[in-house]
Amino acid sequence: MTTFALHPRLLQDCYRLGELSATHLLLHRNAAVPWFILVPETDQDNLLDLPIQQRDAVLGDCKRVSDYLTGSLRCSKVNVAWIGNRVPQLHVHVIGRSAEDPCWPMPVWGHLKAVEAYTAERIQVLQSALLSDAS
Amino acid sequence: MTTFALHPRLLQDCYRLGELSATHLLLHRNAAVPWFILVPETDQDNLLDLPIQQRDAVLGDCKRVSDYLTGSLRCSKVNVAWIGNRVPQLHVHVIGRSAEDPCWPMPVWGHLKAVEAYTAERIQVLQSALLSDAS
Repeated sequence: MTTFALHPRLLQDCYRLGELSATHLLLHRNAAVPWFILVPETDQDNLLDLPIQQRDAVLGDCKRVSDYLTGSLRCSKVNVAWIGNRVPQLHVHVIGRSAEDPCWPMPVWGHLKAVEAYTAERIQVLQSALLSDAS
Repeated sequence: MTTFALHPRLLQDCYRLGELSATHLLLHRNAAVPWFILVPETDQDNLLDLPIQQRDAVLGDCKRVSDYLTGSLRCSKVNVAWIGNRVPQLHVHVIGRSAEDPCWPMPVWGHLKAVEAYTAERIQVLQSALLSDAS
């Protein structure tokens, strides 16, 4: 797909960290919870409708992020979802949660009121950890 | 797993429709949106951490429900998520959405205020449609 472009709303809400093997890796700008968004290049809007090989590659990327959240970041829970009611471009949320975070136990969508900012250094740490040997 | 039992909160919130090939199929009691919950028999709390074969079987069940939502029920969108902040037992939400539903465009969790009840006949229709030739 030569014409693929990330949806403007995703670019507005997120930092673009780089590319995993099957997805563009974005980081939500709100640092109140570690919130990653993975975007495969497809016209489908539902991960379940992707060709199996692409679906599995996307899930592999999600697993990589999920393992980082529970491992290095010591999150006790990972919330995973694709919703897309506002942004039709398929994007998969992979969010680290813990009982101490400011939104627990609610899901973040429409409930996360706290706002924190990332430092450039912190973004660099996440980028290096998740993108090394990615493809 | 001989000791598997559905979480009491899921049984409280849902009708138990039966079993698909890799999951217990539940229907949320609130008929305001068509909201299915699929529960595989596992101790893991994250679908990404299941053995690949089981993960793929669960996703196959999710796809079956998703296709029914977009096909027979003509939903324009399917929201898929596993969250589990309140109910730790792994359960996958597969929810049909459309711009005319009472919660659009918000995700349902914590935002769906409308409450509707299913009739026994309607439950039977859904059950028959989704469980025929399931395994």
